[in-house]
Amino acid sequence: NRTYSISVIPGDGIGKEVMPEGIRVLERAATLYGFSIAQTWQDFACCDYYAKHGQMMPDDWKERIGKPDAIFFGAVGWPDTVPDHVSLWGSLLQFRREYDQYVNLRPVRLMPGVPCPLVGREPGDIDFWVVRENTEGEYSSVGGKMFPGTDREIVIQETVMTRHGTDRVLRYAFDLAATRDRKHVTSATKSNGIAITMPWWDERVEEMAKNYPTVTHDKYHIDILTAQFVLNPDRFDVVVASNLFGDILSDLGPACTGTIGVAPSGNINPDGTHPSLFEPVHGSAPDIAGKGIANPVGQIWSAAMMLEHLGEVDAAAAIMRAVETVLAEPGLRTGDLKGTASTEQCGKAIADAL
Amino acid sequence: NRTYSISVIPGDGIGKEVMPEGIRVLERAATLYGFSIAQTWQDFACCDYYAKHGQMMPDDWKERIGKPDAIFFGAVGWPDTVPDHVSLWGSLLQFRREYDQYVNLRPVRLMPGVPCPLVGREPGDIDFWVVRENTEGEYSSVGGKMFPGTDREIVIQETVMTRHGTDRVLRYAFDLAATRDRKHVTSATKSNGIAITMPWWDERVEEMAKNYPTVTHDKYHIDILTAQFVLNPDRFDVVVASNLFGDILSDLGPACTGTIGVAPSGNINPDGTHPSLFEPVHGSAPDIAGKGIANPVGQIWSAAMMLEHLGEVDAAAAIMRAVETVLAEPGLRTGDLKGTASTEQCGKAIADAL
Ligand SMILES: CC(C)[C@H](C(=O)O)[C@@H](O)C(=O)O
Ligand SMILES: CC(C)[C@H](C(=O)O)[C@@H](O)C(=O)O
Repeated sequence: NRTYSISVIPGDGIGKEVMPEGIRVLERAATLYGFSIAQTWQDFACCDYYAKHGQMMPDDWKERIGKPDAIFFGAVGWPDTVPDHVSLWGSLLQFRREYDQYVNLRPVRLMPGVPCPLVGREPGDIDFWVVRENTEGEYSSVGGKMFPGTDREIVIQETVMTRHGTDRVLRYAFDLAATRDRKHVTSATKSNGIAITMPWWDERVEEMAKNYPTVTHDKYHIDILTAQFVLNPDRFDVVVASNLFGDILSDLGPACTGTIGVAPSGNINPDGTHPSLFEPVHGSAPDIAGKGIANPVGQIWSAAMMLEHLGEVDAAAAIMRAVETVLAEPGLRTGDLKGTASTEQCGKAIADAL
Repeated sequence: NRTYSISVIPGDGIGKEVMPEGIRVLERAATLYGFSIAQTWQDFACCDYYAKHGQMMPDDWKERIGKPDAIFFGAVGWPDTVPDHVSLWGSLLQFRREYDQYVNLRPVRLMPGVPCPLVGREPGDIDFWVVRENTEGEYSSVGGKMFPGTDREIVIQETVMTRHGTDRVLRYAFDLAATRDRKHVTSATKSNGIAITMPWWDERVEEMAKNYPTVTHDKYHIDILTAQFVLNPDRFDVVVASNLFGDILSDLGPACTGTIGVAPSGNINPDGTHPSLFEPVHGSAPDIAGKGIANPVGQIWSAAMMLEHLGEVDAAAAIMRAVETVLAEPGLRTGDLKGTASTEQCGKAIADAL
């Protein structure tokens, strides 16, 4: 009797529209694969909780969320009424840190039916993971201003890396690579320019690599690495990066495969001491919200990642097969992929293909 | 009687091979356009000065360089004997800072004869500038380690932005945009994640924009901006960015146009109180050094940027026309562009096409 408690946070804009499709597919998978999903929905969003209370979440948000097996998240943000750094630090970035979701994991994969902006690439050619440090590094809250409002104004923000925080994400990346065919880790660095933190990051990579004799590794400076994503994306297997570099690479990677609108991500606490959170890469997209045309595949792919994390490996694989089948059919794809389906039609098609 | 004093620093590896071609074209342009070049060569490189003296440059390097009108630089670096951060902070990065070359300027342009990795783009489609802050920001020397060598190890590096340093590079970008047809500035930010320095950067952009009523502007977070470089590179006109973001964008941009091997850059002191430095984007490329096959176009295009900076606008434009003519001919291109010419043959062809 496998029952998973899921905290559902649809968020703002198209988050609210794609979430029902994610849930639809989850429930169908549950029926077919013999587990069940216990949902608790939360209205933590700019246009809901914030609009009423002036903050993204109540002070006792941890109690309200309880101890679910995972969090299923849509997208948060409504810049017209709440500045992005307020909405994000008040929700998504707070979860990442408070729940110690220290790995941000994103696939970069060429999918059928998704036009690739790079010349001559076919589905199968590009298939790698970006493993991003998700709690420290460049996203610190340490720093401030001197002489504000004057010509002498100085603003400082500290990048803070710890051995604890760095080693655990590197370990995750090497562990992941060890399970794959190519068994290769690429580290994103910038030790030639960012000359205090990044040479140290390189040292930690070398140390960690010693524990994995079957895994090969190399490193690229972030500038040339972004170039390599465009020029030789077939070269990568597992790419590990600091918080900021990983943020960049995990948008650029999906852009290179044309999948930015459909890619998922996991914010993972591998230790299992806190819930992990799964969300599409795309944001709340205020410009197309309310029209029922948003692509639900990112939310549904996130459901597959969540099930894989929960151990429902067969159900996860089945969802991915259903996604690929539906993406290959123009009549079942949404308009962003030159299809004709609505959000709901696309979601239903994937549920049916299961 | 226009004579320009140029300090020539070929550097290491292929820097030494492409520099003579840059000089060849410069001298031909001088003859044709009625100016002259007074050269002083320096051996500040890993395999020259460093090999003899254990440092990249003598302590009195400023006196030795004197007060040239510009510095013409090849590429420095030889990781087998000198770690990159030593060679770069001992030369290139030191010039940028000591000569207050606060603008790093790079073109992103689709060129004839250069295969573009993006689907369906033609020469003329992509033509913009990246203006990078070149002296402060994320490339700081402030920070350090606590509890080194233990499990509690913490490494900190500070990003330091000043109003002085930020406003002047923004002003340069808006000034540049004002001279162009589209008159548009795009700012690279990350104010949703890097929540101390980057929201402040955004404010400075808004302040600066008020002085330029004819120039439009927008901003993108760096993650989605890298995606836009791949998906919609025709959208940009002038992109302005902090030191690190500009470093990334000015490699990614040339990668998207296939021109990373041929793109130039200017490290510019717009006030004219110090010499500016012009260099190809590519590095010293130890793997192909010594074979005479390196592409000299980056060095030659850098010569054109240098002449433009010195006011020799016609000569600069003529060099660019010659470059485009030669790039269109497979027999005159080097092997990296599927041509058959050697470094010298390609350089001579461009000098002849002048
Ligand atoms: C070599 C390196 C230090 C340098 C930089 O990061 O500035 C290079 O990437 C560049 O863009 O000129
Ligand atoms: C919205 C933003 C703060 C976030 C980040 O930078 O982490 C996003 O870009 C992401 O990658 O999840």
